[in-house]
Amino acid sequence: MPEMKLPTRAEDFAEWYNQIVLRAELADYAPVRGCMIVRPYGWNLWENITEALDRRFKRTGHVNAAFPMLIPRSFIEKEKSHVAGFSPELAVVTHGGGEELEEPLVIRPTSETIIGHAYAKWIQSYRDLPVLINQWNSVVRWELRTRLFLRTLEFYWQEGHTAHATREEAEAETRQMLDIYTDFAVTEAAIPVIPGRKSASERFAGADETYSIEAMMGDGKALQAGTSHHLGQNFAKAFEICYLDRSGVLQHCWTTSWGLSTRFIGAVIMTHGDDQGLILPPRLAPFQAVITPIFKDDQEKAGVLAAAEKLLAALVDAGLRVKLDAREGVSPGFKFNDWEMRGVPLRIEIGPKDVTKESVVLARRDRLGKEGKQFAPQAGLAATVTKLLEEIQRSLLSRALEFRKSNTVETSDYEEFKSAVEKGFALSWWCGDSGCEEKIKEETKATMRCIPIEQAGGSGKCVYCGRPAGEKSIFARAY
Amino acid sequence: MPEMKLPTRAEDFAEWYNQIVLRAELADYAPVRGCMIVRPYGWNLWENITEALDRRFKRTGHVNAAFPMLIPRSFIEKEKSHVAGFSPELAVVTHGGGEELEEPLVIRPTSETIIGHAYAKWIQSYRDLPVLINQWNSVVRWELRTRLFLRTLEFYWQEGHTAHATREEAEAETRQMLDIYTDFAVTEAAIPVIPGRKSASERFAGADETYSIEAMMGDGKALQAGTSHHLGQNFAKAFEICYLDRSGVLQHCWTTSWGLSTRFIGAVIMTHGDDQGLILPPRLAPFQAVITPIFKDDQEKAGVLAAAEKLLAALVDAGLRVKLDAREGVSPGFKFNDWEMRGVPLRIEIGPKDVTKESVVLARRDRLGKEGKQFAPQAGLAATVTKLLEEIQRSLLSRALEFRKSNTVETSDYEEFKSAVEKGFALSWWCGDSGCEEKIKEETKATMRCIPIEQAGGSGKCVYCGRPAGEKSIFARAY
Repeated sequence: MPEMKLPTRAEDFAEWYNQIVLRAELADYAPVRGCMIVRPYGWNLWENITEALDRRFKRTGHVNAAFPMLIPRSFIEKEKSHVAGFSPELAVVTHGGGEELEEPLVIRPTSETIIGHAYAKWIQSYRDLPVLINQWNSVVRWELRTRLFLRTLEFYWQEGHTAHATREEAEAETRQMLDIYTDFAVTEAAIPVIPGRKSASERFAGADETYSIEAMMGDGKALQAGTSHHLGQNFAKAFEICYLDRSGVLQHCWTTSWGLSTRFIGAVIMTHGDDQGLILPPRLAPFQAVITPIFKDDQEKAGVLAAAEKLLAALVDAGLRVKLDAREGVSPGFKFNDWEMRGVPLRIEIGPKDVTKESVVLARRDRLGKEGKQFAPQAGLAATVTKLLEEIQRSLLSRALEFRKSNTVETSDYEEFKSAVEKGFALSWWCGDSGCEEKIKEETKATMRCIPIEQAGGSGKCVYCGRPAGEKSIFARAY
Repeated sequence: MPEMKLPTRAEDFAEWYNQIVLRAELADYAPVRGCMIVRPYGWNLWENITEALDRRFKRTGHVNAAFPMLIPRSFIEKEKSHVAGFSPELAVVTHGGGEELEEPLVIRPTSETIIGHAYAKWIQSYRDLPVLINQWNSVVRWELRTRLFLRTLEFYWQEGHTAHATREEAEAETRQMLDIYTDFAVTEAAIPVIPGRKSASERFAGADETYSIEAMMGDGKALQAGTSHHLGQNFAKAFEICYLDRSGVLQHCWTTSWGLSTRFIGAVIMTHGDDQGLILPPRLAPFQAVITPIFKDDQEKAGVLAAAEKLLAALVDAGLRVKLDAREGVSPGFKFNDWEMRGVPLRIEIGPKDVTKESVVLARRDRLGKEGKQFAPQAGLAATVTKLLEEIQRSLLSRALEFRKSNTVETSDYEEFKSAVEKGFALSWWCGDSGCEEKIKEETKATMRCIPIEQAGGSGKCVYCGRPAGEKSIFARAY
């Protein structure tokens, strides 16, 4: 496989994506159809995503817990939209310990029901509220068409579940988590996202309101990268999650849920990657820099490796995630290509001349060739590298922003709309009617991604039916 | 429930344990028999265990990954001892997406098979070795008699899986991980453990050799707190995990696996807890100290809370995990009992007089009453607390060591042996014959826990049959 050339994005975007996932050793296919193995390099990326999010969750008062993966089949049926949404996707355990079970169990497709059941038991009074719990786990949804990271039978995610005394508090929580996802995507992953409200037809099964962050991939398609749901009192009523308020009256709680999954890794790949492979944002990259020693013989080797190890120690001491690639039997050129494929943001080359001159060559992954290369003194290298990584992080974000801007059209009519969604996002007046939404989908394959929170104001005519519209929406073909 | 008195350990050790788990809000029963919900306080403890172990794994070159939870039923059958050991405990998925599956899937009871399958694909040459992968996940084993943390259908753990070129390397890895578990238990959890070798009958299904760490609980029974298996070439042969050696010859790999689970939380509870509840070792405690403000009226309240918050900030800045319990409507006495039940190592009391005198009262959880109380100046409190927590950590370890010592008997005959295992460990010459082991179990309910790595030397006569024995073994009743 490493011999074959990676297809360019223009040639075959889907195959380019699949090849990167496999060749960069982010993930592999599992023996069970539609399942994936997340390999160490991919899992390290997920660990960094986890840490960046978990920090934000804890800072806003959330705590982690673990609820079981097995749920009685009957639980799923208690909330009527929920069962309609999830029933077709369930994995069902019928036998345990060699015997047929009295009631089949399902592997959680999401945990609103089992968590609702627990909250009903734990919450008694207004003093117990709010409950702000998150869990890091995996869930199973029996999808028919799967792709590594983007849609797999089992996937990894976090799911937050909170309970509140009032609608306003639940709404504030839902929006706070949307803001956290937005900040995470922009700051850590250098992925510009549009936070907004979903249409009724795209809502989570059982939610009053669903919010999402939407990102534009390298082929112009949209990817929903995180969602936050205001569940109203739907699950509270189905599971009797109640509290005694200050005046002693029994009230139903208001609940929320929000999640971000390993799908986000797909977004990272398709936002930043180029025809040479993956490009990882420095803040999330498992290795922020790789040191590649260059030498011809054993005499050169000793000096170069000693200098490389000294640099490695200095960079690691400064808190940087750095790898020294001392593999034998492969050429520096092979190593260059390999780490380019794996998207390491910065390469540090050191050869015999650099040892003598006490310098190194720094090569940026986001700017290949001469343009991205520079000499740097070995003295103070950690500071130089830190600064350069910040510059790469900024540069990736502005490049992605620029790309989105140049592929987003504020449409003035349906003709313009149709050509806009061929290559990117259409930002268009929409009347809010699901009939128009459906027709648009039929005719253009574009779906209503979200009604952005940020609106320029004013009003116009629905791009499809011409009726009055108070908000503009993002339409696009989507993953 | 909070009204009822906790039974003492002497009255009912099992009920004392169950009550602590529930009242300290470590875990709760799930709606599916035998499953548990790990509540935020218990999960935070597990997160701290996770971090302490993960640091050690990474320092020794291991990386994390994620393998799927669903395994084809046929995989389990490829290694013959493995299938015999795990078949009776499987949870089986027969339906997915509304249809019956062609081949049933099992939820992993452990991951040797699916990881073996992947390693066979990934490993080609000696250059690819060793492979050192760990994963943090949950597994399902259909147990009949379950207890929170100690034995549950689904439990959380880490499972390390490594592949090596030679038997010696695999053995060294197996022993290294045993050492890491030992160091972790002693240093982080203040639990003295005995690392040793299991007998053939207690080996992991499919292993050539199983090592474990064994701890003594507060009732004198043993708890296996972590295991490390040398799998020989058993799984390598079953899954064709092969590599080309330096001379171009195809060889089977040597593999290992090792795991430590949420069962360890049970060990923490039953090693350190007392009749007032849980006692957590400072290095693992979710909250290392709790600040309890004491005041009679609003005037006092303002001054006390302001001082308490200042102290909180100073302690948190120093990297300590501290909680300020500012709950309204409950008395300081209630709070004292509550945090004692939850095992917080140190209580920091602050009242109006302390505000005036710029002091606090420090109360140790491991020494209740006056003996464990001291005044301390607010100035430099972080340093005082840090030192005191280290002292508590040491003190818990030496208390547990003392307890184990006084409940371990180096037996000279079978009569002594029988009375020794009534209250603790017997350290006895054993000939190694599984017939003796079985008889001992039948007659005394004690099992062979391990043959300690550390042996005083010499030789003697088997405590059961009188035949020559070269090593002493630990026998005890066990969880």
